[in-house]
Amino acid sequence: MNGLHLSAELHACAGDPVWLTDATRLREAGLRAVVEAGLQPVGAVFHQFSGQTPDEPGGVTGVVLLAESHLALHTWPELGAVTLDVYVCNRSGDHSDQARQVMAAMQALFRPERVEQREVIRGAVTA
Amino acid sequence: MNGLHLSAELHACAGDPVWLTDATRLREAGLRAVVEAGLQPVGAVFHQFSGQTPDEPGGVTGVVLLAESHLALHTWPELGAVTLDVYVCNRSGDHSDQARQVMAAMQALFRPERVEQREVIRGAVTA
Repeated sequence: MNGLHLSAELHACAGDPVWLTDATRLREAGLRAVVEAGLQPVGAVFHQFSGQTPDEPGGVTGVVLLAESHLALHTWPELGAVTLDVYVCNRSGDHSDQARQVMAAMQALFRPERVEQREVIRGAVTA
Repeated sequence: MNGLHLSAELHACAGDPVWLTDATRLREAGLRAVVEAGLQPVGAVFHQFSGQTPDEPGGVTGVVLLAESHLALHTWPELGAVTLDVYVCNRSGDHSDQARQVMAAMQALFRPERVEQREVIRGAVTA
């Protein structure tokens, strides 16, 4: 169960605003990013929030489940902000490079001007 | 987008083994835990892995999407191990106590003998 968990908060996203508000396209992009990195999706669920007015699209929250763990994202179009998580366990091999590739691919969509990010090694100590 | 992300690795889980191998029951338990804590589920996806032999159940990976972000879990029955994530944004109020309640409820199912856990405050710095 040891693995690598990457997480990031993206601020001042300057990419196409559709990435902050279109659950269908984000789902496709998330699935594409994990497959292109060589990871194995086993499910996905994305939810489209309503905006504060009918004309204003809301944010998106979604997850791609992986055989190797998960990709999660949450968008706040009113803030131009996104949070990303990519967690891979290394039970069947070291997937750290693939996790970094997925994180980079997703950030490339959103084009944040500023990013806070961290890496946590999980479960390294065994019983 | 500021919020609290709790994560934990659970070792030597001594609870009913069904919690490590039954995606349907884990989905129900995850949904119940978030609702009882006062959080709002907006979707869920759980996947049942095959075991190494037909008689041996595999692990489960799953996520409950929340209006407030997500609960994610991954089980490794062959290791007696589980990873848990509870992430809540505090955009519509401080959900930190609810997040801790969900983490405690899920750990109570698995009854780990040893837990590594951490709390990360995310997105506290705004642009």
